[in-house]
Amino acid sequence: MIKELSHIGIAVKDLDEALEIYEGVFGLEVEKIQIVEEQKVKIAFLHAGETQIELLEPTEEEGAVARFIEKRGEGVHHLAFAVDDIEAALQKIRDQGIAVVNEKPRIGAEGFKIAFLHPKSTKNVLVELCEK
Amino acid sequence: MIKELSHIGIAVKDLDEALEIYEGVFGLEVEKIQIVEEQKVKIAFLHAGETQIELLEPTEEEGAVARFIEKRGEGVHHLAFAVDDIEAALQKIRDQGIAVVNEKPRIGAEGFKIAFLHPKSTKNVLVELCEK
Repeated sequence: MIKELSHIGIAVKDLDEALEIYEGVFGLEVEKIQIVEEQKVKIAFLHAGETQIELLEPTEEEGAVARFIEKRGEGVHHLAFAVDDIEAALQKIRDQGIAVVNEKPRIGAEGFKIAFLHPKSTKNVLVELCEK
Repeated sequence: MIKELSHIGIAVKDLDEALEIYEGVFGLEVEKIQIVEEQKVKIAFLHAGETQIELLEPTEEEGAVARFIEKRGEGVHHLAFAVDDIEAALQKIRDQGIAVVNEKPRIGAEGFKIAFLHPKSTKNVLVELCEK
C-alpha cells in the first residue's frame, strides 16, 4: 500500500542554524523555503536523493511543532510515506486498528492530500501519509 | 558531500509487533532479518522506495538501542546518509566543528563502512554516514 518514503520532518528551533549544518556542512540542496501559516511553521525543503528532508521551525508558540520541541526537544518529528490513494489507504489502515490523528485527509504544505496516523499505533513514530 | 538518505533506523521493543504494522499493515517489503551480535540488535530491513526502514530490536539490555529505548522510548533512532568516501566526509565534517561519536569508520550491519555523528551537533538527530 505504501509506495516509498517521501520525506522526513525534523523539528528545529532555528532554521538558519539548522541550514548551516544540513545545507552548509552536509551539502544537501535546498529546493525552497516556505512559511506555512496554517501549520505555524517555516519549512526548508532539502533534497536527499529520492527523499526530502524538511526542516521545520515553529513560527508561533502554540503550533504542533512548537509543542513537540517544548515537550521532546528538537529532532525527527515525522516520517511521510507516499500512497496512491490516500482515502483508500486511510480506510484500510483504520480498518486494521491503527489509530489516526486525521480521520480525513487535509491539504498539506505542498498542496498534496495528507493525513497523520497516531504514534501510539506505529511504535512512537509520527507517520504522515501523502498523496502526490 | 552527502548523496542521499540511505535508511532510517527505528528502535522497537518487539520486532514481530513492529513488523505487523510496517510489513503487515503498510505493506513494506522485508528484504531480510538479521541479528547483529556486535550491536546487540535484531534488525529487519524493509524497502520504502530508494530508502530502507530498519526496525531495530535490542537483543541485550546493555546495547545502545536498548539504552535509547529505556531513556526515550521507542521511535526514530537514527538517519543514515550515503557518502562516496567516508574518511574524507568525516574529516571534512569534523573540520567544520561537528562532533562525532566515531572518530574513525567502523564496519556496520551490512558490511559497509559507517560512522555516527553526535546528535548535539545535528539538532538532536543521530546521523550515520555510510559508504556502500
